[in-house]
Amino acid sequence: MSNYHCPDAKTLQTLKDIANKLRIHSIEATNASNSGHPTSCASAAEVMSVLFFHTMRYSVTEPRSPSNDRFVLSKGHAAPVLYAAWAEAGLFPASDLLNLRKLSSDLEGHPTPRLNFVDVATGSLGQGLSCAAGMAYTGKYFDKAGYRVYCMIGDGESAEGSIWEAMAFASTYKLDNLVAIFDVNRLGQSEATSLGHYLDVYKARTEAFGWNTYVVEGDDVEALCKAFHDAEQVKNKPTCILAKTFKGRGIVGIEDQDNWHGKALGDKAAPAIAELKKNIANPGAHGLVPKSPEKKVPAVNVSNIKLSEPPKYDKGQQVATRLAYGTALVKLGKSNERVIALDGDVKNSTFAIKFKEAFPDRFVECYIAEQNLAGVAIGCETRRRTVPFVSTFACFLSRAYDQIRMAAISQSNVNFCGSHAGVSIGEDGPSQMALEDLSMFRSIPNCTVFYPSDAVSCERAVELAANASGMCFIRTSRPNVPIIYGSEENFKIGQAKIVRSSNDDKVTVIGACVTLVEAQKAADELAKTGINIRIIDPFTIKPIDAETIINSARQTGGRIITVEDHYPEGGIGEAVSAAVSECRDITVKRLAVREIPRSGKPAELLEKYGISASCIVKAVNQIISS
Amino acid sequence: MSNYHCPDAKTLQTLKDIANKLRIHSIEATNASNSGHPTSCASAAEVMSVLFFHTMRYSVTEPRSPSNDRFVLSKGHAAPVLYAAWAEAGLFPASDLLNLRKLSSDLEGHPTPRLNFVDVATGSLGQGLSCAAGMAYTGKYFDKAGYRVYCMIGDGESAEGSIWEAMAFASTYKLDNLVAIFDVNRLGQSEATSLGHYLDVYKARTEAFGWNTYVVEGDDVEALCKAFHDAEQVKNKPTCILAKTFKGRGIVGIEDQDNWHGKALGDKAAPAIAELKKNIANPGAHGLVPKSPEKKVPAVNVSNIKLSEPPKYDKGQQVATRLAYGTALVKLGKSNERVIALDGDVKNSTFAIKFKEAFPDRFVECYIAEQNLAGVAIGCETRRRTVPFVSTFACFLSRAYDQIRMAAISQSNVNFCGSHAGVSIGEDGPSQMALEDLSMFRSIPNCTVFYPSDAVSCERAVELAANASGMCFIRTSRPNVPIIYGSEENFKIGQAKIVRSSNDDKVTVIGACVTLVEAQKAADELAKTGINIRIIDPFTIKPIDAETIINSARQTGGRIITVEDHYPEGGIGEAVSAAVSECRDITVKRLAVREIPRSGKPAELLEKYGISASCIVKAVNQIISS
Repeated sequence: MSNYHCPDAKTLQTLKDIANKLRIHSIEATNASNSGHPTSCASAAEVMSVLFFHTMRYSVTEPRSPSNDRFVLSKGHAAPVLYAAWAEAGLFPASDLLNLRKLSSDLEGHPTPRLNFVDVATGSLGQGLSCAAGMAYTGKYFDKAGYRVYCMIGDGESAEGSIWEAMAFASTYKLDNLVAIFDVNRLGQSEATSLGHYLDVYKARTEAFGWNTYVVEGDDVEALCKAFHDAEQVKNKPTCILAKTFKGRGIVGIEDQDNWHGKALGDKAAPAIAELKKNIANPGAHGLVPKSPEKKVPAVNVSNIKLSEPPKYDKGQQVATRLAYGTALVKLGKSNERVIALDGDVKNSTFAIKFKEAFPDRFVECYIAEQNLAGVAIGCETRRRTVPFVSTFACFLSRAYDQIRMAAISQSNVNFCGSHAGVSIGEDGPSQMALEDLSMFRSIPNCTVFYPSDAVSCERAVELAANASGMCFIRTSRPNVPIIYGSEENFKIGQAKIVRSSNDDKVTVIGACVTLVEAQKAADELAKTGINIRIIDPFTIKPIDAETIINSARQTGGRIITVEDHYPEGGIGEAVSAAVSECRDITVKRLAVREIPRSGKPAELLEKYGISASCIVKAVNQIISS
Repeated sequence: MSNYHCPDAKTLQTLKDIANKLRIHSIEATNASNSGHPTSCASAAEVMSVLFFHTMRYSVTEPRSPSNDRFVLSKGHAAPVLYAAWAEAGLFPASDLLNLRKLSSDLEGHPTPRLNFVDVATGSLGQGLSCAAGMAYTGKYFDKAGYRVYCMIGDGESAEGSIWEAMAFASTYKLDNLVAIFDVNRLGQSEATSLGHYLDVYKARTEAFGWNTYVVEGDDVEALCKAFHDAEQVKNKPTCILAKTFKGRGIVGIEDQDNWHGKALGDKAAPAIAELKKNIANPGAHGLVPKSPEKKVPAVNVSNIKLSEPPKYDKGQQVATRLAYGTALVKLGKSNERVIALDGDVKNSTFAIKFKEAFPDRFVECYIAEQNLAGVAIGCETRRRTVPFVSTFACFLSRAYDQIRMAAISQSNVNFCGSHAGVSIGEDGPSQMALEDLSMFRSIPNCTVFYPSDAVSCERAVELAANASGMCFIRTSRPNVPIIYGSEENFKIGQAKIVRSSNDDKVTVIGACVTLVEAQKAADELAKTGINIRIIDPFTIKPIDAETIINSARQTGGRIITVEDHYPEGGIGEAVSAAVSECRDITVKRLAVREIPRSGKPAELLEKYGISASCIVKAVNQIISS
């Protein structure tokens, strides 16, 4: 190994002192809130002390500087020890820690980016390492910078498969700037973990997954200093530090005991603190100043990203929206070098492959591991270093729904594109059909849900998504659909398009993409019988353009029919129903897929599941005669 | 090892012949449908041949017999080779295979239980092993029977974390009746897998996860026969067979080549088949009859399961619905020994721990791995061997949303209970709050969504769930809420309760659990100002009791207010809006949590996010004055 110099005895004692101070803060804060996880903090105290006061390079006054080393507390329930570390580093007064979990404080029960030293929200376990891997990937390959990424993982949460997806990803991409620390404190919430203190089993697993691995006693600050130093010398492999720890370490009568997960110590706090204080050599200011970053990482511009050229199609031309997604992505990539794309081994189906072909260095193949795919993208987007577009079949984004839920809490701007929406994919059958994706993404706060109906609007959706604040979801479809918009058509989030109207429309029909095509066919059919209908393309399902919809409905007898290649719940039909729910003069009839579909030809399936042109004709005739 | 006898030369040749016949069937079927995955079938042909015609014990005429060995094709896109195996076994004529992927046929693009030889739908990758582990757990611990479980996994899909959750689970529980076969054919959909043919890396991983592992040439029928035999001799460990294979094996010019994923061979089919036929010694009937099960596994009764005693509470008593869940589960467990419970290391929060205490042998601790938790339960429920109840925090069920989606396609009757719904959990903050769970489960076809408002109705929800056809979700809450129903109250799926009414109600307010409590407080407050409101407890959010809601609304001026501890999309508000969407005389105002919430006290949060009694009072006053 390298020229390692052990810290001097005074420094080591100070690191030990800080660890015990972090324990005391954690006990006091959780006691003040009468809830929280002091024992999960206690096991991690030395690791936190060494990381924050010896190993990591960062600016205390500018916690979100792109130059800083990153730290992700994947075991988010140990938030108090993270908050305590930043207080001890001087970011805010230690007295603030007593506001833990209060409504008036940003020191929430689990970390969120409301705090300027938190990049990603944690608390749903097993997600931090993917985010950390995304940060490390960004550091190594996009920023080409020296900052390092540290991620602390609980042993209980290492049972989450997402951890192992991230482990595989990090070794595949040789993320030698990434260090994972497993806090192996043996005890889960309700019982011991399945592996207890079998550190050799953990070691076999992390090594098999391609990680350089060290086993250390988790309260040995000297060993920790050395392990983190050694990790820096290792090339082309991420490092895993397996810290053998004890839950409630240092808390007499509670250390390593069952039934102390997630409980404030109450009247056991005072004697515990008294004991801990005995181990603190210097109760005063510790005097350790974190190391500053070695080099400044420049700011990047991720705003006002435009398509390099406008959509270029002929009206009526048949183009799949999934193909337009790939086309648009390449155009964004030309305009801004911080646009990146990630995919889960379906890039030739989602057409993310076009981006890979144009910008191989900005394409991240995440293989068939959608949780990690989402997490890596979320990590890449932190500190606004990149503008990530994640694609896979829309149904497989359900695999990452917890990551997506957490991404909203993380205030992420990551963009998702889900292809192969609905029964219109045809023969592959229900396992490959997204029929709940609109519902899924609509339920995410601050998520914009695009459902473009042709290639022109799809390209514009991609462009809008790149610039939108908050998460975006773009739903694309497999079949070709005709171009309906001119290349210069202007699109806005929350602005629907009336694509067919007359002065004598009897019903407003709202569909998107394949069902908009069916609505047009139905309109042609109905026109032959003298019945005109208005057709609306909502463009975004969230926000939905309530004004256009209500106005149209009122001009068409108060009658709306929605038709969607989606289950009836949470999609277009319910979005529209909710949008007009306070209007007494408007009714909504909803056509949607109402059972588990089968394999078959797309047209057969649209018909069988009640969302074809003929079904719309029937519904229109029914509604106007009732 | 044991007294292994190699099959005679004739049998070995027949197994090879069958493998090539399976290849030919797969090519012909996918060519007939002009879609599908012949190359992914070809790599697996020898494994399928050996399993179905040498190793597995099953009744061809009774594919779903509980006595049979089980087979799960986790790489569901290789469906044609599975269908071909059953055709060669004699279940149906081989000519049926040419109906692959047609709307008129149950031979869908990916396997579903519409076919009597399929237990769980596959096609979303990485899910099969958890289901297989659930079957093996059931076989070993509940049925105490000799049947064995085989699961074929693609190498690409082994990147899914859910595979590694299942690997850990199977070794933790010593499932020596489980065999996983990794079909390591090197190529994914859009490029080579990250591990290619590095079998030693796979071996290190599977062994580190506690599995007995054999590496074999995947087209060596003799080696496969021996490996499967040896696996049967191993005690207390599951066995993994790493089969080194080639995608498109045996198809000249296509074997081991890129860009042949998911494509019918077209005009390359005929020469490929001609080549394959050259390797078939006996093109006639193969004459191999699968071995029958050694012992008959008796039927079990999982119908008409009742609470062993009725709910026993006093009106007004404060009880959390999550506690009532645990209580009811124990009562079901007393009535039927096939009721089981599974949890993800939060059993002391969900109160599944009560079941564990009463019936430790029927409780399955799945640790912090929710995808596997769901998958194991789905596996346990196949062939209706058990009635599983899965619990965790409701927000963490989002981790298993893809598994839940697939469970619907699998026609599973598995029951989920999600605790800690909404902001009413308080201090833990948004990462632990389920605010999209109703939306998630409502979007699942055939899923009954219970949202009980007190302990009495919760116990009945649990009882109804045990007997319902299709999946069920029960949403429980953390805080205590008052008992509002008498112990003898009768509950039905789809039947709401009017919990407060007068002849002069101005508005119908619909809430559940914590928001029903707030509605009652609001009603008391409003009554002081002479305004009466009707209050409805929907009991099930899906199906929603449209009739009671519409009738009540019409008796209260056509005014409805919904109030829910959930985001505005896909929950009670949209369910009600959709239910009344065809009524011209009814309006719905929706109170819901409209932003990412914070940590705080439950009452503070209900107020801050607009779903408290005072917010309801305000909304009522507003709506009746408008």
